[in-house]
Amino acid sequence: MAVTQQTCSIARSLEVLGERWTFLILREALSGTSRFADFRAALGVAPDVLSDRLATLVAAGVLEKRPYRKPGSRARDSYHVTPAGSELSVVLGALQQWGDDHRPYEPGPTVVRRTVDGRPLHVGFVDDEGKEVPLEEVRFKRTETYPTS
Amino acid sequence: MAVTQQTCSIARSLEVLGERWTFLILREALSGTSRFADFRAALGVAPDVLSDRLATLVAAGVLEKRPYRKPGSRARDSYHVTPAGSELSVVLGALQQWGDDHRPYEPGPTVVRRTVDGRPLHVGFVDDEGKEVPLEEVRFKRTETYPTS
Repeated sequence: MAVTQQTCSIARSLEVLGERWTFLILREALSGTSRFADFRAALGVAPDVLSDRLATLVAAGVLEKRPYRKPGSRARDSYHVTPAGSELSVVLGALQQWGDDHRPYEPGPTVVRRTVDGRPLHVGFVDDEGKEVPLEEVRFKRTETYPTS
Repeated sequence: MAVTQQTCSIARSLEVLGERWTFLILREALSGTSRFADFRAALGVAPDVLSDRLATLVAAGVLEKRPYRKPGSRARDSYHVTPAGSELSVVLGALQQWGDDHRPYEPGPTVVRRTVDGRPLHVGFVDDEGKEVPLEEVRFKRTETYPTS
């Protein structure tokens, strides 16, 4: 992956994630899919595209490669979510929630977010005391490193 | 935009957002940019790509078009964030946070999230009482509408 120093952190995240297949591969990986053939079967994605996106995610430290070998077969790589990758579940949770609210699937959500004891969860802005802050009270502030001109 | 009934809400969100420019246009719109020429100047995006992505965001109800006319010029359209669009600030906030944590810009974040009274904010999973739940205690559960086969 090209090294860049884009100042915007959203743009830098999208250097890794800025494409539909990448998010869907990540969704599968977070659900426990780890083998090339299983990603292909779950997503119906072309093998060259899948190879390319997996390589991007490995290079970015979102997935890590581990070798495995089934008896009688050659060694292959499997792909596992790293801690940096599992933090992306907040991004996926936010996309999921927006899709359910604003582009609903008629029969209802196919996947829901729950606490360990089954209570509903959503994604939102949280303050330094762990309390949710409503959208109207959220401010995005430029810092002194914000590029001028 | 094609009408589809993809069951996955992440995939449905990405039908609108699944591309780098779309997120960056939305970032600008949420910062108050509304005119075609100002989006172009801020992003350096090609005019045909910008037209296309603005049309997608309008069709999806994320932006709305309003006509305006500067004295002596022809009428033009400006683009304004709808309530559905402003809910996408959770997605952008999550992307921003991940970029700052895992793809940092050397001099530090250029934009930060704050409460009205200046306290730091992050994006996370929140329960039905408005309290943050740590990532390790978040479960994604399939419902009975989850596609089988």
